[in-house]
Amino acid sequence: MTGDLLLRAAARVYTLADGPKDRPRAGAEMAALGVREGWSVVVRGGTIAWAGPDAELTADKVPAGAAELDCRGRALLPGLVDSHTHLVWGGDRKDELEMRLAGADYEAIFAAGGGILSSVRKTRERDDAALLSESMARLGRMLRAGTTAVEIKSGYGLDLDTELRQLRVARRLAEETGVRVVTTCLAAHALPAELRDRPEGRQEFVRRVCDEVLPAAAAAGLADFCDVFCDRGAFTPEETRQILVRARALGLPIRLHANEFGHTGGALLAAEFGARSADHLLHLDDGERAALRDAGVVATLLPGTSLVLGKGFADGRALVKAGVPVAVATDCNPGSCALESLSMVLALACYGNRLSPAEALTATTHNAAASLGLHGERGRVEVGLAGDLVLLATDDVRDLVYHAGSPLIDAVVHAGRLVAR
Amino acid sequence: MTGDLLLRAAARVYTLADGPKDRPRAGAEMAALGVREGWSVVVRGGTIAWAGPDAELTADKVPAGAAELDCRGRALLPGLVDSHTHLVWGGDRKDELEMRLAGADYEAIFAAGGGILSSVRKTRERDDAALLSESMARLGRMLRAGTTAVEIKSGYGLDLDTELRQLRVARRLAEETGVRVVTTCLAAHALPAELRDRPEGRQEFVRRVCDEVLPAAAAAGLADFCDVFCDRGAFTPEETRQILVRARALGLPIRLHANEFGHTGGALLAAEFGARSADHLLHLDDGERAALRDAGVVATLLPGTSLVLGKGFADGRALVKAGVPVAVATDCNPGSCALESLSMVLALACYGNRLSPAEALTATTHNAAASLGLHGERGRVEVGLAGDLVLLATDDVRDLVYHAGSPLIDAVVHAGRLVAR
Ligand SMILES: [Zn+2]
Ligand SMILES: [Zn+2]
Repeated sequence: MTGDLLLRAAARVYTLADGPKDRPRAGAEMAALGVREGWSVVVRGGTIAWAGPDAELTADKVPAGAAELDCRGRALLPGLVDSHTHLVWGGDRKDELEMRLAGADYEAIFAAGGGILSSVRKTRERDDAALLSESMARLGRMLRAGTTAVEIKSGYGLDLDTELRQLRVARRLAEETGVRVVTTCLAAHALPAELRDRPEGRQEFVRRVCDEVLPAAAAAGLADFCDVFCDRGAFTPEETRQILVRARALGLPIRLHANEFGHTGGALLAAEFGARSADHLLHLDDGERAALRDAGVVATLLPGTSLVLGKGFADGRALVKAGVPVAVATDCNPGSCALESLSMVLALACYGNRLSPAEALTATTHNAAASLGLHGERGRVEVGLAGDLVLLATDDVRDLVYHAGSPLIDAVVHAGRLVAR
Repeated sequence: MTGDLLLRAAARVYTLADGPKDRPRAGAEMAALGVREGWSVVVRGGTIAWAGPDAELTADKVPAGAAELDCRGRALLPGLVDSHTHLVWGGDRKDELEMRLAGADYEAIFAAGGGILSSVRKTRERDDAALLSESMARLGRMLRAGTTAVEIKSGYGLDLDTELRQLRVARRLAEETGVRVVTTCLAAHALPAELRDRPEGRQEFVRRVCDEVLPAAAAAGLADFCDVFCDRGAFTPEETRQILVRARALGLPIRLHANEFGHTGGALLAAEFGARSADHLLHLDDGERAALRDAGVVATLLPGTSLVLGKGFADGRALVKAGVPVAVATDCNPGSCALESLSMVLALACYGNRLSPAEALTATTHNAAASLGLHGERGRVEVGLAGDLVLLATDDVRDLVYHAGSPLIDAVVHAGRLVAR
């Protein structure tokens, strides 16, 4: 496996190469997919070395001994970029899912110390090898569904040691699989059980996040971003602000869980701090949308979570109309949404968030990459970018929406290598 | 390919063998999955010949030369049964889907040549070979997603010739693929364009359905069931009644599109006529649920259509509580929902209709088979039934819900033969 591959004569290549490349795309830019018909793509040493009309493909462009993938009649997309996951966790919460389907409420489970805290318990129990192998199974399914780059948050440790262990396992996942991994320290995901009943527990926890976890994660090079769960039942805007000030001082760019349960201040904080991304956003008014747009914050929609929790979908149409750049991600986590397939969540973004199929593709490729600072290496089919591609079974990316959930992915190519199905 | 296969030592076999077998299951019966741990299954000549603990598997039970499939660590299910599809149609309506996602109303779509009548136009234009090959591509994806038996309705002809052609193509699909196909004449799907503007057009159309299409379909043995789209904008209860009386006289059992847009009389007619199935059912009151239960009608839920149209989900929980047997199907059709993967729609039935994962599995296997009269041959893992099985990638069927849309199907076995991925 050399990372040399010739992808031959695709009916359509969705290059995403026709819009701005140095920033996420907004408004009408999101619908331009840069479709090229009958193109071939050459990957050399894991990087796209040539892309153009098949008729112009000459022997000198193809590395000696490169494998060949016949793409006739089918569509090629950039590898998908999943910009919001909590992939490294121990155990599962399938029993809780069954309880919720039978009528129990997520916020009620959360307030009662279940929910996130049961995953914290199991994640702390696991050793590194167990965390790695459980997470690897999930990442393997993500990859086979078309995701070739993934953001992974900590947040099931809630203590210094386990938070760092989660981030280390995330880095190990990249080493073991070659998948591009970006890490986010989400130490402020929930208040841990051991501090819940102490009078100064909340302040003490925020202090530990600011003075211990974030500095240690930054010093060890384990965190590419800082995130806070700023919402009802989690952290207040004031607590969030303390943590973001510290993250900024440490040089960590910011992503934020915001406005999932109400107009709880997260979106405005994301704008104020120039976050790269504000995520969830089920509750947004015109002023909040304008603030995100003016600050250049990517609005990251997580329609899988909306499907699972049954509490409505973020208004993606309004965000596109307001000129806010939009990304779409899985939110893959043990509790509110364990969906792994971004190619299926892309369809939910159409049916639930009312994006067009073209906007949803931009939201899961170039825009997701840009929100992670990866737009110089991922999210488009372009010379010099990573050789990450998805070959569909049909010639039309809209089939991912029209026939959502069908077996429509014929091959996933990661750094010029075919991913085993 | 002999149809001989040994499936070895599955972590769990969901046999569905513990409840009543001669009728669809209701209430608590729907949660009993008949799970067996460490079982093997022998298929001989396409039929399940033995199933039991792997330790009791002896050489005499295995046909000479049978292929072997190692199922250790994974779960086996019965092949899924999709009891409501409109699979045979020409063309697609992806442009219309995009218009709808952008907010277009029905009149705008109609003015642009869309809606059900555009599928009628394209289906009439296609010759048999084109209809067969377009439908085969869809059926292939269904099969790879776990469906091994499928109901197929006509209804994009709306004239004698094309209705019969659709049903003939459905029969051909069975011959070409070996998939078990059950056919339904849905001649009364919509009023065709050529009769819309004639003063007596509606009565003339109902007369043709009763006097021409249904008798011809029955005489040719092309229809196993009769269905009517009884709802606002389609056919009135009075028109539906005329057609059902005729179907009964012809000996055709009945399925009914009912109560999708309101309390429009369909559910009560289904009960009155002893229909095998009433489908959609977004609007149901206690009296209508009781009528369905007392008449033994299967309530068939179509959550894919709810996802696509964004107009809410049928209350599956209330149906289970009321003791109505529930099935779940894709509704695969060119307009309101082109979803093909029943293993994904099973998850939507949990998130949207609030079934438990166990109930959703019963709804897509034994109950769906029973609504089609196939409970003597499909829908359970049991000696004497068809060798149709789905091997998951994990040991827990709940993963189809928890990780909805992920690549979780390791193999599909149809009549003892492995379906190519
Ligand atoms: Zn999250
Ligand atoms: Zn239908």
